Amino acid sequence: MFITFEGIEGAGKTTQIKLLYEFLKSRGNNVVITKEPGGTELGKRIRDLILNPNIDDKPIGMSEIFMYLADRAHHVETFIKSYLKKNYFVISDRYIDSTIAYQGYGRLFDIQILEYLNNIATQGLKPDITFILDLEVENGLNRIKNRNLLDRIEQESFEFHSRIRKGFLEISKKENRFCVINSNDTIENVFEKIKNIIVDKIKIEM
Amino acid sequence: MFITFEGIEGAGKTTQIKLLYEFLKSRGNNVVITKEPGGTELGKRIRDLILNPNIDDKPIGMSEIFMYLADRAHHVETFIKSYLKKNYFVISDRYIDSTIAYQGYGRLFDIQILEYLNNIATQGLKPDITFILDLEVENGLNRIKNRNLLDRIEQESFEFHSRIRKGFLEISKKENRFCVINSNDTIENVFEKIKNIIVDKIKIEM
Repeated sequence: MFITFEGIEGAGKTTQIKLLYEFLKSRGNNVVITKEPGGTELGKRIRDLILNPNIDDKPIGMSEIFMYLADRAHHVETFIKSYLKKNYFVISDRYIDSTIAYQGYGRLFDIQILEYLNNIATQGLKPDITFILDLEVENGLNRIKNRNLLDRIEQESFEFHSRIRKGFLEISKKENRFCVINSNDTIENVFEKIKNIIVDKIKIEM
Repeated sequence: MFITFEGIEGAGKTTQIKLLYEFLKSRGNNVVITKEPGGTELGKRIRDLILNPNIDDKPIGMSEIFMYLADRAHHVETFIKSYLKKNYFVISDRYIDSTIAYQGYGRLFDIQILEYLNNIATQGLKPDITFILDLEVENGLNRIKNRNLLDRIEQESFEFHSRIRKGFLEISKKENRFCVINSNDTIENVFEKIKNIIVDKIKIEM
């Protein structure tokens, strides 16, 4: 099963992914955690080109999109698909929906073109479940303020992140795979909801 | 004016580009030479990810394509267009047609999709003239054999380079901007043809 987590910065994806990983492991499943960008060796190098705030020659918007897609195409083919074939649970921190939310709603690129590009990069591979961890932009940005080094995306304006939040909420209405979770709650309560949805979906015996 | 040079490895692009640069300069024009991939600082880093034969995690085909497009989008927007606006002659060693020849004819990706992707990356910017330097694949590969470090593309098989040569020749029939030049000739004779075409096109007084 292919599970993705989406949401604005500071929504708590990393924490919830770890909890889900431990939960599925404890039930005897094979599970692997990955992320975009940077889920492969090549992807880490691409990620550095996109996000490193110390590189002078910043990619223009369309160039940034193509680099995310390069990362994704490589990630799907060499990592995600090979684990899915081996019957692993693959949990990814961000995937296709981040492109639509960040580049489409955030940077205002044409969403239909982005969907077309996503489709080429993934050969149509969609997640079985996508959790959108939703919270107020202020709360999210407050949570990440204490991180030492903010990357280039995290440094963007409040308005940019507000458009992205709105984007995720609109996207969530389009397909059945989406579950929007209010993440302005305790870690335990958020995870309880995620766990219940997963258990329901895979019918693990409780 | 935007001029591109295309052709298989060893076709003599670098030499002819230098001669054309000197010629146009000597006539008092502003001229700049560039290349793909690697025409910008960001592009050089992307080029290294694609072509460095010492990187273990080689990009899969579609990932390679997206990296070329990332390089191109950034190159067009931050370099080519800005020099064209300042009325420079911009001479590029490879551009959109290399994607069609190498990834389309060479690696057998869908050519219509590649054309669509090129169009997004360049926002439709096409060269005014494209010189395709054509010669037998054997001759081209012989010419580059003495280079110290062959990159990943140059190490490919004879059949791969044969498909690319065929690709360039087919592409050349599709638009008026193409001039196919037999480069199995002396440097001077090849340049004489290029010069005449350019002079005719821009009507420099001889």
